[in-house]
Formats: sequence, C-alpha cells, structure tokens
Amino acid sequence: MSLEEILSDVAAGKLSVAEAAARLRAKGTAELEFARVDLDRQRRRGIPEAIYCPGKQPEQVLAIMAVMEEHGQTVLATRAGRDLFERVRERFPRAQYHEAARAITLTPAEAPEGRGRVVVVSAGTADVPVAEEACLAAELAGARVERLYDVGVAGLHRLVPHLELLRSANVLVIVAGMEGALPSVVGGLVDRPIVAVPTSVGYSTQLGGLTALLAMLNSCVPGITVVNVDNGYGAGVAAAMINRAAVEGGSRN
Amino acid sequence: MSLEEILSDVAAGKLSVAEAAARLRAKGTAELEFARVDLDRQRRRGIPEAIYCPGKQPEQVLAIMAVMEEHGQTVLATRAGRDLFERVRERFPRAQYHEAARAITLTPAEAPEGRGRVVVVSAGTADVPVAEEACLAAELAGARVERLYDVGVAGLHRLVPHLELLRSANVLVIVAGMEGALPSVVGGLVDRPIVAVPTSVGYSTQLGGLTALLAMLNSCVPGITVVNVDNGYGAGVAAAMINRAAVEGGSRN
Amino acid sequence: MSLEEILSDVAAGKLSVAEAAARLRAKGTAELEFARVDLDRQRRRGIPEAIYCPGKQPEQVLAIMAVMEEHGQTVLATRAGRDLFERVRERFPRAQYHEAARAITLTPAEAPEGRGRVVVVSAGTADVPVAEEACLAAELAGARVERLYDVGVAGLHRLVPHLELLRSANVLVIVAGMEGALPSVVGGLVDRPIVAVPTSVGYSTQLGGLTALLAMLNSCVPGITVVNVDNGYGAGVAAAMINRAAVEGGSRN
Amino acid sequence: MSLEEILSDVAAGKLSVAEAAARLRAKGTAELEFARVDLDRQRRRGIPEAIYCPGKQPEQVLAIMAVMEEHGQTVLATRAGRDLFERVRERFPRAQYHEAARAITLTPAEAPEGRGRVVVVSAGTADVPVAEEACLAAELAGARVERLYDVGVAGLHRLVPHLELLRSANVLVIVAGMEGALPSVVGGLVDRPIVAVPTSVGYSTQLGGLTALLAMLNSCVPGITVVNVDNGYGAGVAAAMINRAAVEGGSRN
Amino acid sequence: MSLEEILSDVAAGKLSVAEAAARLRAKGTAELEFARVDLDRQRRRGIPEAIYCPGKQPEQVLAIMAVMEEHGQTVLATRAGRDLFERVRERFPRAQYHEAARAITLTPAEAPEGRGRVVVVSAGTADVPVAEEACLAAELAGARVERLYDVGVAGLHRLVPHLELLRSANVLVIVAGMEGALPSVVGGLVDRPIVAVPTSVGYSTQLGGLTALLAMLNSCVPGITVVNVDNGYGAGVAAAMINRAAVEGGSRN
Amino acid sequence: MSLEEILSDVAAGKLSVAEAAARLRAKGTAELEFARVDLDRQRRRGIPEAIYCPGKQPEQVLAIMAVMEEHGQTVLATRAGRDLFERVRERFPRAQYHEAARAITLTPAEAPEGRGRVVVVSAGTADVPVAEEACLAAELAGARVERLYDVGVAGLHRLVPHLELLRSANVLVIVAGMEGALPSVVGGLVDRPIVAVPTSVGYSTQLGGLTALLAMLNSCVPGITVVNVDNGYGAGVAAAMINRAAVEGGSRN
Amino acid sequence: MSLEEILSDVAAGKLSVAEAAARLRAKGTAELEFARVDLDRQRRRGIPEAIYCPGKQPEQVLAIMAVMEEHGQTVLATRAGRDLFERVRERFPRAQYHEAARAITLTPAEAPEGRGRVVVVSAGTADVPVAEEACLAAELAGARVERLYDVGVAGLHRLVPHLELLRSANVLVIVAGMEGALPSVVGGLVDRPIVAVPTSVGYSTQLGGLTALLAMLNSCVPGITVVNVDNGYGAGVAAAMINRAAVEGGSRN
Amino acid sequence: MSLEEILSDVAAGKLSVAEAAARLRAKGTAELEFARVDLDRQRRRGIPEAIYCPGKQPEQVLAIMAVMEEHGQTVLATRAGRDLFERVRERFPRAQYHEAARAITLTPAEAPEGRGRVVVVSAGTADVPVAEEACLAAELAGARVERLYDVGVAGLHRLVPHLELLRSANVLVIVAGMEGALPSVVGGLVDRPIVAVPTSVGYSTQLGGLTALLAMLNSCVPGITVVNVDNGYGAGVAAAMINRAAVEGGSRN
Repeated sequence: MSLEEILSDVAAGKLSVAEAAARLRAKGTAELEFARVDLDRQRRRGIPEAIYCPGKQPEQVLAIMAVMEEHGQTVLATRAGRDLFERVRERFPRAQYHEAARAITLTPAEAPEGRGRVVVVSAGTADVPVAEEACLAAELAGARVERLYDVGVAGLHRLVPHLELLRSANVLVIVAGMEGALPSVVGGLVDRPIVAVPTSVGYSTQLGGLTALLAMLNSCVPGITVVNVDNGYGAGVAAAMINRAAVEGGSRN
Repeated sequence: MSLEEILSDVAAGKLSVAEAAARLRAKGTAELEFARVDLDRQRRRGIPEAIYCPGKQPEQVLAIMAVMEEHGQTVLATRAGRDLFERVRERFPRAQYHEAARAITLTPAEAPEGRGRVVVVSAGTADVPVAEEACLAAELAGARVERLYDVGVAGLHRLVPHLELLRSANVLVIVAGMEGALPSVVGGLVDRPIVAVPTSVGYSTQLGGLTALLAMLNSCVPGITVVNVDNGYGAGVAAAMINRAAVEGGSRN
Repeated sequence: MSLEEILSDVAAGKLSVAEAAARLRAKGTAELEFARVDLDRQRRRGIPEAIYCPGKQPEQVLAIMAVMEEHGQTVLATRAGRDLFERVRERFPRAQYHEAARAITLTPAEAPEGRGRVVVVSAGTADVPVAEEACLAAELAGARVERLYDVGVAGLHRLVPHLELLRSANVLVIVAGMEGALPSVVGGLVDRPIVAVPTSVGYSTQLGGLTALLAMLNSCVPGITVVNVDNGYGAGVAAAMINRAAVEGGSRN
Repeated sequence: MSLEEILSDVAAGKLSVAEAAARLRAKGTAELEFARVDLDRQRRRGIPEAIYCPGKQPEQVLAIMAVMEEHGQTVLATRAGRDLFERVRERFPRAQYHEAARAITLTPAEAPEGRGRVVVVSAGTADVPVAEEACLAAELAGARVERLYDVGVAGLHRLVPHLELLRSANVLVIVAGMEGALPSVVGGLVDRPIVAVPTSVGYSTQLGGLTALLAMLNSCVPGITVVNVDNGYGAGVAAAMINRAAVEGGSRN
Repeated sequence: MSLEEILSDVAAGKLSVAEAAARLRAKGTAELEFARVDLDRQRRRGIPEAIYCPGKQPEQVLAIMAVMEEHGQTVLATRAGRDLFERVRERFPRAQYHEAARAITLTPAEAPEGRGRVVVVSAGTADVPVAEEACLAAELAGARVERLYDVGVAGLHRLVPHLELLRSANVLVIVAGMEGALPSVVGGLVDRPIVAVPTSVGYSTQLGGLTALLAMLNSCVPGITVVNVDNGYGAGVAAAMINRAAVEGGSRN
Repeated sequence: MSLEEILSDVAAGKLSVAEAAARLRAKGTAELEFARVDLDRQRRRGIPEAIYCPGKQPEQVLAIMAVMEEHGQTVLATRAGRDLFERVRERFPRAQYHEAARAITLTPAEAPEGRGRVVVVSAGTADVPVAEEACLAAELAGARVERLYDVGVAGLHRLVPHLELLRSANVLVIVAGMEGALPSVVGGLVDRPIVAVPTSVGYSTQLGGLTALLAMLNSCVPGITVVNVDNGYGAGVAAAMINRAAVEGGSRN
Repeated sequence: MSLEEILSDVAAGKLSVAEAAARLRAKGTAELEFARVDLDRQRRRGIPEAIYCPGKQPEQVLAIMAVMEEHGQTVLATRAGRDLFERVRERFPRAQYHEAARAITLTPAEAPEGRGRVVVVSAGTADVPVAEEACLAAELAGARVERLYDVGVAGLHRLVPHLELLRSANVLVIVAGMEGALPSVVGGLVDRPIVAVPTSVGYSTQLGGLTALLAMLNSCVPGITVVNVDNGYGAGVAAAMINRAAVEGGSRN
Repeated sequence: MSLEEILSDVAAGKLSVAEAAARLRAKGTAELEFARVDLDRQRRRGIPEAIYCPGKQPEQVLAIMAVMEEHGQTVLATRAGRDLFERVRERFPRAQYHEAARAITLTPAEAPEGRGRVVVVSAGTADVPVAEEACLAAELAGARVERLYDVGVAGLHRLVPHLELLRSANVLVIVAGMEGALPSVVGGLVDRPIVAVPTSVGYSTQLGGLTALLAMLNSCVPGITVVNVDNGYGAGVAAAMINRAAVEGGSRN
C-alpha cells in the first residue's frame, strides 16, 4: 500500500489518521523518508512549518496537524478563525488559540524560554494581526520577542521614547500598511537588521498592500529587506534565523 | 473691453454670439484671439502659464515666448536645457536661466516682492530640480518662498530643528522621490496645508515616481493633497493660490 | 498596570470601558501623554480624527469612540452603516447619523457656526456619499460649506448658472467618478484652489477609481491637487485647512 | 477577373480550389498575388492602406510604395520624418509631404473633391499631428474634412462659438491627450457619432496615453467610441466609413 | 418653451442668465429642471437614457423610473435582475423584462418600427447578455436590429455563411470576450463601420475583459472603434447614431 | 562514470558530497566540468544552446562561441546585428549570418537533413524576424521546417489555401503581434499542437507584446500553448522537441 | 455526409453554398447544425469539449450535456461542485464525479485504455485540483496519464527519485503556483516537451497566478510552453495532442 | 554633547527647540553639522554610504567624494563607468575601479580583514555585476565574502557540490534574474538567512526585474527576504549587518 493510497484513504474516510500514521511510521517508502527529513529538520532547527488555513477544509487542517503532532512537530496554523479552533480543540485539547494573531498552535511540550531579542514594531493597531503572527512564528522558532505597537510616522513622539529598546534588538520586524513609511524612519534611527512587512491595511490605491510593499522596497535607507504583503509568518521566520545567528555566533572569521 | 468680459456678456445674455465673434475677430486672427484670452487672464490673476519644453522645437518655444512677451506676459519655460537658453537669450536678452530649476523666465518688469509664505521642502538633493520649479512658479505667482532641502526621513535630526519654519508657512510644498515618506512625517508634525509632489527619483520598482505617488495618496496623515509626478510647476501654482487666499483673506464667514 | 494592559483587558472583556477610561485619565504614562497630545491637538486645531469603520468590529468602534468622547473630542466615524449606528446610539444617545455621508458624528457640544466658504461639487448623484463625507469633515473642522451636486460635464448647462457661487469659495472640493473630467472644466472657469476627489463610481476599466484619479493628476489646468480615491474625509480636512488660512489670514508678507 | 472574385467563386462553389490556385499563380508570385488582393480592395473601396514607418528601413518603405504605386494605389505613409520624405521624393517626384501630419502621400491622380462632413477636433496644439493624420486618412478615403484645433476643456470659451460647426458633422473625430476630457464635454453638447482618439500628450502618470484612453472609455456620455492611443489613421478611416454611410444612404429600412 | 431653447437663447445672447434662471425655477425645483432638460433631449433625439442598476436600491430605481415615465420618457434599466423587475412591475404594470439582456424597459407607447439596419454579432453564447443589451439600446433608439450569435473565431464555418447579412448592415456591433478576435476577422471580410464591444467573458488573465479590450484596440484591421468592457448599452447607442446618419442622410457634400 | 551518475549517487546517498566533489574536480576545473556537462547534453540531444546577444560585448560573444566551438557545439547567436557578425566572421570564417532572423550560426559540420515537419506561420511581415528565429532553432535541432508568412486574420483568403500544409505538420509555430488572433483562427481549423509566439509588433496599448500574449493565453480554442513575447528561439526549441517525439515515436502505450 | 465534409466540399468548390445551406438546414435547426459540427469533430478527433461551469445555471449545464450526450459525445464539465453533480446525476445516472478535479464526466461508453504517456506533475497539494483537471482532459482524449504530486522546489529530494518516470514521458504537464519555479527545475533535468500550468495558489502579490505565469514565461530553460492560469483543461488537451503525435508517429521526414 | 543627545533631550522635553538649535548652530553651518553626523555614524558603524552615479554629473560625484574623503569616510560609487573612474582617479589617485561591479572605491586606509562569512550566489553570468556590487558593499562593511556564480536552476548539478559552502555562511545573498527561482531552490537546501536580489536580466515579460521580484516574494520557502531589483548595494549592506550580529554576538538572551 503506497503512501499516497494511505493518504487518499484518510481523505476518503476509509482509514483513521492514527492508523495511517502508524502505517506510515512502519514504512520506508521514498515519500516517507523525505517527509521524515522535513519533520526531522523542523524539530532540529526549530523552524515550525505553518499551515496556511484559508481555502483549506477543516478536515484537511486536522489531518495535517495530526501527522505533524504524531511526529512531535510544533504546529502553527495561520489565518485561523475561532470556529476552526473549536474544531481543532475537540481533537487536540492542548491546542491554543492566539486571538490577536488569528493563529492556532499545538506544541509538543512547554516551549523553552526564548533567547536573543527580536523586536516587532507595528505602525497602527490594524497591523497588529500581522505583527502578532510574526511574533508567534519567531517565538516558536526559539526567539525572545518584544512588541512595540501603534508607533506610526504620523506621531513620531510615540516612537522616539523607545529608541533604547529598538537599538537593543538583534533584528527588527517592522509591520506597516498604508504608505509603509515606518521602516524608513526607524532605519534612519537604528542600525540593526530590519525585516519590513507591508500590510494590506488601507484602501483604494493602497492596492491591497502593493503601495506599502513598493515603498519599503524603495526605502532611502539601505539594508532594509522585505517580505510579501501580510506575511507575518515569513518575517517571523526570517527574524528568528537572524536572531539565532546572533545568539549562536556562527562563523566568526 | 477684455475678451473675458466679452464672453461673460455672452454668457450673461448681454451680447449676441455673432456680435461677440465679430469683436473677437476684430482683434486679430482667431488664434491670436484665443491666445489673448489666456494672456489676459494670466496677467490679471498673476498665475504664469508655463511652456513645457520637452518635445518642442526651439523655434516653437521661441514663437510662444514671442507672443507672450508681446502681450506683457510673464514667461516660464520648464525643463529647459542650457542649450535652449542660449537660443532664447539671443532673441530675448533679458531672459534668465535658473540652473537648479532647469527653467527659463522672462518677466515684463522687476517682479514685486513676494507676499505671504510658502515653504518648499525636498527630501533629497536629487529632488531639488522639481522643488526649484515649484519655487519659481510660486514666486512668479506672487508668493514669498522659503526653501528647506535635503531633510529626508532617513535623517530626522536634519528636519527637527526647522519645525519653527515649517509651522510658519501658509502652505507647504513637500517634494520627495523614492518611497515618498516625507509628507507623512512632516504632516504628523505640522498642521498646515500640504501639497505633496512625488518625484521620479529612484530606480527599478520606484516605477518612475509611481511608488512615491501611491505612498503620498495613502498617507496616514489626513489632509495631504498630491500633484502629478515631477510636477513642480503644478505644485507651485497650487501653493501660490492657497497662499494668496491667506494673504488676501477671502471669504471670512 | 500599563496602558497597553488596560486596553488588552478591555479587548478581553476583563475591564469595562468606563473603568478603563478612569484609569487612563488618572495616569501619566508615556502612552497617555502622547495620546493626550493628539487629543489636545485635535480639539485645539479643530481637525477631527476619523474612525474608518470598514473591517472594524462594532465593539472596537465603540471603544475608540468612548475614549475620544471622554476627552471631549469630536468623533467622526466614516463608512458606517445604519446597523452600526443603532449600536452606537444605544451607548451614545447624542450621536447623529448622516445617511447621505454614511457617517456617524458625536460632538462634545453644539458646533459653532462655520466660517469662510468651502464649496463641494459633485459630478453625479452616485458621487454624493463621498461628497457628503467631505462636507461633514470640513464642517466639523469649522468651515462653512456649500453644496453643488450633479453638475457633471455631460450637461454643462447645469454647471454654468452656478459660476458665481464657485468663484466665491475660498477653496473648492470637486468630486467625480467615471472619467473624472469635472475638475478640469471647473478649473478652466474658476481661479480658486481646487481639491479633486476621484471616486470609484463607474465600472470595468474605471478600475475602482483609478481612471478618475489618473485623469485628475493629468489635468490640463495647473494647480489642481488630488486626494485618494473616495477619500472624502481627506479632501474635507484639506479644504478646511486651506479655508482656515483664508479666514485667519496667516502670514501676510 | 479580380482575385476576390476568384475567391468568392471558390466560396460559392463555382470554382475548385485547385483551379483557383492555378489562376492565382498565373498572375505572379504567391506574395504578389496576395498583395494584389489587398490592392484591389483598396482601390474599389477607397480606404487607403497605410504604411506605418517607424521601425522600417527606408528601402522597405520604398519597396512597398513601389508595389502600391504600380497598381494605382493611394499611398499613405504615416509617422514619416522629412529625411525619409527626401528619400521618397527622389524616387517618386509626385510624392507630397504633410508636415503637420508627419505623413507622405502619393496618389494616383488628383483626388476628387471630398463629400459629406467629418469634423476633426483637437484639444491642444500638441495633439495636432495625430489630428492631421486623421484628417489625411479621412480625406484620402473620400471625406470632406473640417478642422477645429486647440479647443481643450481648460478654455470652454474657445469651444462654444463652434457648436454650429460641430452639429453639422456626419461624424466627429475628437483628439485629446492629458486627461482626455474633451470627448465627454463635446458629447454633452452635440448628438453626432463621436470617434475619440486618446493621445500620448502629457507626461508621467499620463502613461503614454493610457490615462486619456481610460477616461474616454469611461465617459459619462453614452455612444462615444474609441480607437487606440495616437491612432489618427484608424480614427480617420472609421470616420470616413461612417461619413460614407451618411453620404451614400445605406440601408434605409 | 423647452429648457434647451431657454439655454440656447442664453448662449445666443437672447436671454439673460437671471431671466433664464427665473423661467427655469418657475417650472419646478432646481433638480427637476435639470432632469427635465435631459428628458427633453431624450424624447426629441430618440436616444434613451439608461439606468445602470447595480449598486442602486430598488427604491432609487423606482424613483428615477417614475420621473422619467411622468415625462413620457423611454426607460431602459440595465443589469436588472428578475427580482428587481417584480418590484418594478408592481408599480408599472406595462414594464417589460428582457431576460436575455437582463434589462427592463418601459416605453411610453408602442415603439414605431425600426429603420435602417444594425447587425449585432456575438462570439459566444456567454456574450449574449451584452449583445442583447446593445440590441435593446439600438432598437429603443429607432434602429432595426438583426442578431447573429455564437459565431466565434474557433469555428469560422459558422460565420462564413452569413457574410451577406454582415455586408448589408449600416453598422456592425461585434461582441466578444476571451481573446476578442472576432472584430478583426469580421473587419477583414466586411467593409462596414464596426463598433467592437469587449466582454469580461473568460477567466484569469482575461482580466475581466482587459484582454479583449486591448486586442480590439490593437486590431490589424483599421477603422474598428471600441467601447468599454461589457458596455452593450454604449455600443447600441453609438450604432444607432451611425445608423441614423445612414437613414437620414446627413451632410452630403 | 558520467557527471549525472555521480550526482544521482549523491542524491541517493551512495556517494558522499566530498567524494563526489573530488571526482568532479579530477575531471578538470570546476567551471569547465559543468560547462562540459551542458555541452555534452546539447550534442547528444541536438538542442542548440543560444547566445542572446543584446547587452553582451562582442568579446563576450566571441569567448562563448570559442568555448562552444572547441567542444563541437552548434552555436546559435540570436538578435545579432551585421556589425557583430563581421567581428565573428573574422575569427570564425565558417560562421553564417541569417539576415531575416538576425542570427549567427556556427555549426560543427554540414547539418543532416531535417526530419518530420514543423510549420512556422507568421501573421505579418513585421513578425518575420521572430518567425525566422524559430525556424533556425528548430532546424538546428533537427527538424524540417516549412514557412508560411503574412497570413494574418485581416485577410483570411491568404490563409485558407494553405490548410493542407497546416494539417500536415507535426506541430505548428504561429507568430503574431498586434491583437495576436491568428493562433485562435488556425486552431479552429487545424487539430495539430500549436506553439503560439506573441510579438511586440504594434504600438501604444499593444504594450510591447503583452496584448498579443494575453490574447493567446485566453484563446477560445483549447490546447494552444504560449511562449514569451518575441521568443522565437524558445518556440523553435519547443516545436523541435514535439516534432522529435512524432518522428521517434516515443512511448506508445 | 458529415457537416465538416459538407463545408470542405464548399471550400473545395465541390458544393455550392446554397446547396450546402440546404443540406445543413435539413439536419435540424440552425443552432443544432452548428452544434452538430462541433460534436462531429470532437468524436472523430477524441478531444472532448469542456463545459466551464462557473457562472452557468445548473439548467444551462444540463441542457448542454443533454445535447452532447444525445450525439454520443464525451462530456467534461469543469469547476463543478458536488451540488451540481447531484443535479446532473438525477438526469444522467451514468455521470461520474471526480472529486479531486472538481469535474463531472459523462462518457458514451467505456473508454478504451489510454496510449502513450503523459506525466502530470504538481508542486504542492493545493495545485492538485488543476493537475487532476489536466489528467482528466488528457485521459478523455486518449492518453495514458501518470501522476507525480507534491514535489515542489523547496524539497528537491522529493523530485529526484522520480527522474526515471519523468524521462519516460512523451510530454510533461507541470502544475505550480506561488513562484512557479518547478518547470524550470524539471526542465533542467529532463529533455521532454513541457507544458507548464501556473496556478493561483498563493496570496497577495502572487496576484492570482500572475507571478507564476510570468516566472514560467521567463524560464531560463528553453522550450517550455505555457497555458493560462489554472487552465488544467487546456494543458491536458495540449499534452494529449503532443502525446498522440508521438503515438501515431505523424510526419517522419 | 553629541548631536543625537541634543535631539533626544529635545524629544524628552529637557531642552527647548530654540536652545537645541543654538547648540547645533554653534558647531558649524547647519549643513555641515548634519553631514558630520552622518559621517560620524558611518565610520563608527562601518556601513559605507553609497553614491549612486547614474544621473549625476561627474563634478557632482567628485564633490561628494571630496567631502567624504575629507572626513575619513569610505567611499563607494556604484554604477560607475570607466570614463567616470578616469575622472575620479585624476583627483583621487588612490581610488580603485572594480570592473565587474561597475564601482569605484576610495578607502581611508588598508581595510582590515573581513570577518564572519557572507556567501554571494548568482544564477547566471549576466547577474554578476549586481552580485559583485553586493560583495563590495559587504566587504567595505567588514564582512568576509565568498562568491559562487553561475549556478542557476537550469543546471542543479552545478549547485549541489557547493552545499557545504552554502551551509557555512552566516547569511546568503542570492542574485537571480529571469524567473528568479534560485532563492527557493537554495532555501530548500540550506537553513541560513537568505537575502534575495532580483535582477532585470531577461527580456519582455520579465518586466525589468518585476517577474523575479514577484517570484522571490512568493517563494514557497519561508524566511527569504528581498531587496529591490538590481539593488546589490542594499543586499550587501543587509547581509553585512546580519553577519555582524553573528560575529559580535548581540543580545544572547
């Protein structure tokens, strides 16, 4: 019985997830090996794979979570509504819902305390869901995260008192919608690596985030890097990898 | 009887169209008549008509200047190279070249001193030609202009010491390329009308100014208005009109 | 207890808005100070901050209104449906609904009579909601506003009889969808500052307002400035600031 | 027996494909045969085929002209510089250069007088080359053409005195760049078929004519049809065909 | 004295603006006056004004229809669902629903027989609603209309047998979605004026009709003119105006 | 042991990366080794690698040609001007210039006669350079190629007589600019695999080929596949691979 | 005598148009005649026509299926939900639902076994519906199809073990969303014709598949051809036609 | 008291703006002061400011270089031709030209040896100038850089032998044009921070780098960050900042 048959049977309801997992574990087909590599890599490296929920059936999300949980993986389900979470909790009572990040997590054990320092900054309150997604991703990947929200460029007096905090970070994640100017302003004040996240907050010619994205790519401050619109998860992962380099040292010379 | 008076009379029913046409024709060729209308309006209102030079033959520019000068008009030729100016000066020795603005002016007399206060701000040195075009247009339209250049968001310490100046303006013209963030930052600090001018300074996905234009249209600071990319002339005219309202008072209640 | 904790508790339902407001008032954290600045500035300058309702939960709108009302702020909630208003009125019986503008206002006291003159013009009846939003914003900011609606370029005979009114304005707000030609036509007839507002009225290649926006940016009449598509609020604020310059005089020379 | 007759006979079953091919081959090389078909149609219908010169070598233009002239065709070479004309005149001394239209014509004989009435209107002087190309195409196709130039929407007083002329046309060609508003304004005043031609006159976000094109497609006046940007030739042909329908009557009921 | 006569007299200098305004005001409220002008023009010229229903409340549609019906106007409500029609019929029992065109009509009397010949061609069955809207508009404007549907370029054998019909038209309306190739193919076979209507039929990179629009604007056949995507109404009006020129003759020389 | 075998062994875990690297290095310098692999593959498969000349210095082109020639490769240099060819011929006297295709070839020996049948069709004469590039690429890859040029949709009578030829092909390459309609029309007449090549022939909203590209992607005829704008080389390679499958048979069941 | 034979005879001059029309009319109504032509072609060539369900009423789908089934056609209804299938099954009990492909099929008889080999590859599980649509289309058109799913570029170890399978194909269909990189990677490893299918899987700047489409068109591997976004059906048809050329041999020299 | 301290005191309300301005002015002219701040920061942090040469007059470049050199700054002039370098060398004999990077450097002293490890990877040889610009920027900022060029996805065998090197980096800069797939492939193989640089290498729908940019933003591998098209300098700066965090350790917990 091939792995694909096993999974189709799960999808068709002919095989329970538990049974399928058992069979998979007992096997050594090419697919399983490679799957194992991924699972293995995640656990070892601490970068959690995310399940992007929009467009997926609850059953599909549950099936993927089951496989991951079986292998001791950290599960991060993004853009998940509370309804979906209710379904998830029935099956995985240990699952947690993160309202602000619209995300579900299911971790194999109590996470060890985060290390280093990632500072996640948001321009407005409407950007917070994306910012929280970044926080969650970075935390699950082992980083200690500090939050600084609602410090947009229209009120610089809200930003300036926190320069100390910003300068103490190994890496900054800066989340902004509308005209996306915050990374430039912060980048002019702080010499730390910056991962900028454009959001789709705005309307009309904000073009679903394109305006903020273009602004960030064209910042007059060199050294700012950018991820896709609303991609808090990607920014959190990038920041965690940079933070880890600082924590672990890496190549010194 | 000015041409506009003729036409108002037509509109007001005081003059038949046939009669109006006859009077107009009596003043010269049809083309000249229409030109005269515009010339008349310009002199009275003080808003100089601009000759946009790119794509025009030197002879064409000279011909337009000749007609305007003949009628006592203020001439502003924008985007003009020094070569063109040499040609112009041969014919109009009083013409002046404004290197920084890439513009030629030819004024009927010594301009009276400007009134009110328009402050023109540029983010970078590369934005200066557009800013200077705005200054020139505003000055020719009767405004007193102050310049504040190279105060982009990457170095806020360059901007902050000039808050007093910014707050003293009747209207601000803010010129910025790349990510176009400066109007938002200034708008958060100063409660004066702001005319934002995106420039094509930048490269690649700056898209010839589109990035700065979109950023300005989507500013998180309300009340910022925007003109076309690199349109220093238009911004200068708009600022002069607003400045004049402040100087002259306008409708009070 | 930090301000952020206070607000999270409100969001989590652990703290009533009234109680939170009391605590906030009693405090002096950095956040509160800066918030106070904004509140202070608004009341002093008369530019009301707007709550853009789409995408916000009714509870969120209510919480923001509560904070603003506590501090004697003028509240303007834009793009608000009647349903939302019913929720608002339960809590703030003095709140008013402006059907045509799709907006809710809650003002600390009877507004003083407006001063100066802002004329708001719309091309079609479908543009009226955006035009009314502009009127409301300008009025809340202290301007006297005159309306002139449904005078699109397809019927110039509807526009011409009102030239007197148009020429009496300190500033014009011109709202138009489809091909967005009205600002050019009015700008050719009237020498007053013009704030043009493109709307998303139209279909297909009108591209949600982009066509009108581009047309306005490329007007053959110099001095027209533009705000974002459907941004009646921004246009109203800009017009009010220009109107105030005329009313208060500003720098004279 | 013309080539088209041959092909109609094939379509009508009167002639076998093999026989038709043989007859065609007897008339020259395959390429010439097909060229001849087009030549035949042109002469009969009076619609001149145009040679679009940009990107073509002078030799190529000359070769095409030679074939056309040999078959008694009317030649219209568009977007042709004076240099190219010098080359052409050496070989075809009867060729004429139309400076304003940037076009070369070479007609088999004195053209008969035009019939009907096509009125070609331009918004600005910079739109004249496109307008002249339309005039030339319509004239070569047998239409009588009247010109009305530089009557853009920024100065309606220049347009209004010519309403009589506009209303006398069988069809109007309206050429405008920048915001492309003129067809809407004229269409609101005159109930004649309108072919609108957007031009690339303007800069920056005029986007090489896209702004005017979109504006014309989204006109609030129904019944305006549009051709490609700067496509004076196409507009002239369309207008000539509509004009011919009026002149010749066509189906009456 | 009709409103238009009043205004022509103003334009002609026969009537003062003040007097004209008084007369207009005597006829009803300002809004009604302006509406009346349009109503007047419609009835005289035979071009029905359309009510574009999407985004309008049923009450709004009913109110506009009531005003129009009261003045003996032909009513054409486009993009109307059957639900809306049920509401309309309750109030106007003579109203008719045109399923294929998704349109409601309400005509003051039995329409006179159409004159001339407009042929409306559609590429596919999915394009029929737009084609039917064009037919309806042309018929209400007095044209005789012939339909030829589902003759797309993928099956030329379906088109060829109808060449006779196509060549007998005063003007062709050609409606096509997807790649929008049909106008080019027909235009290569038939020398009649062609109004091309791109539709949004297709998916993905058809981009809601943009692909067909661009293809039609760039046709290799000269003389094709284009209206906005899905704008059957506009095409029908344009075709009716061209057809009328043929029927009525117009300027002959 | 071939390089590819070495790498599969690495992928399969049969060979350590260190060992593999050693073996690779033993075969020459790293660069040469990898170049050799490509060279090897090309000769064996008969697909010539192309040198895209624009933006390359003549020296660079010569250097690449030298390496390829040294290894017995077929050289195809595309978008090459005659000037470049003169430089090439000095060094490689056997090189040939293909004027119509703007390409240089340098083949190790007399090419064997082509097999199968690829028919390359162009809509207009301006599309010929791209079509010829496709022919050349297909011929160098071993295909027999037939050309059918200037059979655009504006004159179907030019296409129809060649249906026999079109139906005899193993695969068709159809090259068209402007509205890109030809693949749809041919695809409706002929049931052979079609590779469509949009060209940048056209102007203005043809958008450098985007219009033709979109039209081809949205063809109403299923089964048409598309390559990049002006990419004659890619189309020729694709056609040759399909043609080879027909000639060699491939998997039968 | 089939309809196509009738038309070929007309084209070949063996049959007059009048006679042909008479014969066609004798076979049923005009609509049915044209439908019959297509039906005839489909059965003979084995390429099933697809019914694209989105936007169609269930009744419309049923009506089309009825006509096709009546004529012994293979029916393929794409993008069909299970609800629609329930409706279909009531009427056509033999209809089958393909969950993974979101498609309904209704075949006249047991399909003969597929021939040749088409390999359909998908980058991710979210791309499977499009991939399955391609499989179904190719199978209905007579091809034997192998599937290889979830082998995206982020895990090359999942792809490499299947090189043997990939190299055994007559043609590959490669389905990928997000950045669309898989065709390039496979194309670098395997020298078979590749039909690439971009999908709309992704979010934000993936732009509904545009990103993957552009990436595939710009692949650094020559010879990859592309179909429209999410167009599994089109890719399946193209692959089947290429596969058939390999199976049947075609022109050999 | 540093300038930054002055400004913090202003922000904190410890110092009046007037007083701060006075102190600043006391340090020299305003411009020089602010320039000094930047100069100071650069030397301390080791991030060289770049002079982007296109569009600048040689005199302007020389003037900026003179100021920087005077203050002991490291000068990096990007996109500089050899001609410009000749001009520079006349004045600054120690200046160096980096042909591959098209850049000029002028360093105050022998640079200390680089630390850590940045690996810069390019997909093709045409991407090398951008890659070299990244190398130079990173080296001037203190990083040790390794290069790995021409390892595009069309030939994975060229990439695989270098996995060891890739995995040893603190951060990778990956430069790719055309379809921009390389960062995804490398990111699937190596768990290090990746800064992806899209280039404008390609043609037609590569859209000057937009295709590669979009592909990189939509990578299926999480954690990849992106800079602007062709922005090697920005990528080098970002990589150097990340590398420094690894070398210096940063916040550990």
